[in-house]
Amino acid sequence: MAQGTLLYAQSGGVTAVINATAAAVIGEARARKVKVLAARNGILGALREELIDTSRESAASIRALAHTPGGAFGSCRYKLKSVDADRAKYARLLEVFKAHDVRWFLYNGGNDSADTAWKVSQLAQAFGYPLHCIGVPKTIDNDLVMTDACPGFGSAAKYTATSVREAALDVAAMAETSTKVFIYEAMGRHAGWLAAAAGLAGQSPDDAPQILLLPERAYYEAAFLAKVRQVVEKVGWCVVVASEGIHTADGRFVADAGGSADSFGHTQLGGVASYLAHRVKQELGFKVHWTLPDYLQRSARHLASKTDWDQAQAVGKAAVQYALQGMNAVMPVIVRSSDAPYRWRIEPAPLSKIANHEKKMPASFLRRDGFGITKRARRYLAPLIKGEAPLPYGNDGLPKYVTLKNVPVAKKLPAWEE
Amino acid sequence: MAQGTLLYAQSGGVTAVINATAAAVIGEARARKVKVLAARNGILGALREELIDTSRESAASIRALAHTPGGAFGSCRYKLKSVDADRAKYARLLEVFKAHDVRWFLYNGGNDSADTAWKVSQLAQAFGYPLHCIGVPKTIDNDLVMTDACPGFGSAAKYTATSVREAALDVAAMAETSTKVFIYEAMGRHAGWLAAAAGLAGQSPDDAPQILLLPERAYYEAAFLAKVRQVVEKVGWCVVVASEGIHTADGRFVADAGGSADSFGHTQLGGVASYLAHRVKQELGFKVHWTLPDYLQRSARHLASKTDWDQAQAVGKAAVQYALQGMNAVMPVIVRSSDAPYRWRIEPAPLSKIANHEKKMPASFLRRDGFGITKRARRYLAPLIKGEAPLPYGNDGLPKYVTLKNVPVAKKLPAWEE
Repeated sequence: MAQGTLLYAQSGGVTAVINATAAAVIGEARARKVKVLAARNGILGALREELIDTSRESAASIRALAHTPGGAFGSCRYKLKSVDADRAKYARLLEVFKAHDVRWFLYNGGNDSADTAWKVSQLAQAFGYPLHCIGVPKTIDNDLVMTDACPGFGSAAKYTATSVREAALDVAAMAETSTKVFIYEAMGRHAGWLAAAAGLAGQSPDDAPQILLLPERAYYEAAFLAKVRQVVEKVGWCVVVASEGIHTADGRFVADAGGSADSFGHTQLGGVASYLAHRVKQELGFKVHWTLPDYLQRSARHLASKTDWDQAQAVGKAAVQYALQGMNAVMPVIVRSSDAPYRWRIEPAPLSKIANHEKKMPASFLRRDGFGITKRARRYLAPLIKGEAPLPYGNDGLPKYVTLKNVPVAKKLPAWEE
Repeated sequence: MAQGTLLYAQSGGVTAVINATAAAVIGEARARKVKVLAARNGILGALREELIDTSRESAASIRALAHTPGGAFGSCRYKLKSVDADRAKYARLLEVFKAHDVRWFLYNGGNDSADTAWKVSQLAQAFGYPLHCIGVPKTIDNDLVMTDACPGFGSAAKYTATSVREAALDVAAMAETSTKVFIYEAMGRHAGWLAAAAGLAGQSPDDAPQILLLPERAYYEAAFLAKVRQVVEKVGWCVVVASEGIHTADGRFVADAGGSADSFGHTQLGGVASYLAHRVKQELGFKVHWTLPDYLQRSARHLASKTDWDQAQAVGKAAVQYALQGMNAVMPVIVRSSDAPYRWRIEPAPLSKIANHEKKMPASFLRRDGFGITKRARRYLAPLIKGEAPLPYGNDGLPKYVTLKNVPVAKKLPAWEE
């Protein structure tokens, strides 16, 4: 049994499979007889000394955790500045780590979290404390560099493509006398990965979704409306998938356009579909329906991808191994060696090369007109949504998700005030 | 082999299981060696003589039809007036029926469609043509009288309860530093059946969804906001499920309120969640996310209820049997004989008692404060979402849905102009 405690925390927007990573971390650590604490609400729990004793959870609970969406220990949106600028906070972190003999810290999140993990990984040197910090990838945005995909993305992508295919069958049936255009708003502020994945729902340009709108291309309303009209004339109806982050050539978010469709000026995006629906109806006269799945797209564990679920667990297991091997400032990433059959392995990559970088979609993934994806994009995306991850349903007809006991660890330090 | 042709048509908003009814109709008719034509886009296809020869579909396609959402032959929103007021249309219908030897007409839809079916059923008497017309129930609104439930509702209800449970896990994880309130907009103009079904996602008043807003109770903003604040203070976060049709005590739809959240004055409802989100944020200052699943909730065959799927097939099979037995002006309805275990059977009920009636939710289904459902409601709703209906997935990770050939029958009559 290794000396010391492993601390695991979840950060940023949660996903359908981040708890699968958590379950793998706990499982691997248990197999190696290493004690695992979890921080409540990410790095905030570490600062506040709000720690959870995962040893109080049964093996059955940890198995169920692997198929439970959300973030079982709570997540946070909280950024640490540099070690110099936030020295008091880092000092507090170290106090908490020392008080609980934390030698290994695993931070499970996306871009911002990789940055936090990288900063924490510098503590060993800055403060002379033997800490091993590992970033663990997760984000439905799929925008971490160095990794073939980000755990969470494949399941959200499978949800998106499936939902679009299903809704398209509905629209096709209604189009003669009712709805002719359907607009689906996908998450994706800076990169259109999820909207692109919707393209997997169809094969030919006449299959739904006939129009994708991604932030990688500027939004030109006239071109969009002309395309909608053309598709309705040819196919009889049209399904559009738009990323929340699409913007005009001069950089204005379409979600903010006019202020009419989204009148309350919230800073979170959302409102693209309602705006586009408004314009289609106004300019073309077609009856339009639209959907904003919002959190449903990232919490739909009932529709998780097996590939994604496997990878979520693999990165968790590898993170524990890397930590116990004494690595620091790395992230287990997914490396693809073959498209079909999809072959991948886990390797460590330096956090310094991941933090503060953003993976954009390659230009070669988008068709020349911007309204669809290329074969190259399909080769990349297709394996990520493959397979169905097992999920037990209860006698009540609902998925059986677990609620952990989340027993708090007794505090040893004075309260922390930000 | 019975003499004559059976004509089947789909009408109104489609569902995740209306094609299961279609598959059962075709399967039962094939077993009895009866020819089945389908009208393209409901009664419109009958008027236009746009008929589809279902005998051209393979047995495998019909089996796959049973698990394909949408409406495979096209649906319509089209109302016929009384036989006297629309005499020319009824005469045309009879011409088409005669030209194709249609002796049995099965109309698969909701309230409006039951009305159409009832009117068509009167043709035999009015025009002296031996027609047997059977209404076949379908609607996610669950508002047909005489039947325990409406095929389509159970699956939409299962989707709603599951999605709310999943999203609630997401919100719970984010609440400390981000989203504290999540609002889910469910279909339901006049009756809140789907929003009520969301109540199955939780057991105690602190479980999500903590607040239901149904059209059966007037919306009082102050009471709603006070309840949201109370839940957030106690639980830390709050999930609200609102029917699209909620209205104030003086009858104004909340979706229309202010015109700000839904600024483009469309006549279709939708916009309740964005409006409520706006008010919660403005008055309480909480970060809010909201979802409008729209068509996703009625096309999500990947999450269909086994009970619902079984019933959808049972009414299709019974409809063929009733027709061939010479019944007219009836609908096969579901009769419940026991809650737990759920036992039901199919019986014929007169269309005259179904058309133009609307099943409201009993007052006893809503808690005194109106924000939740009672045990009685649970006893009614619980069996309807039970069980998972089998669904094959392809190697591409998406459900395998069928596209029928829909081979048209050669027209025998002059074109019809409305």
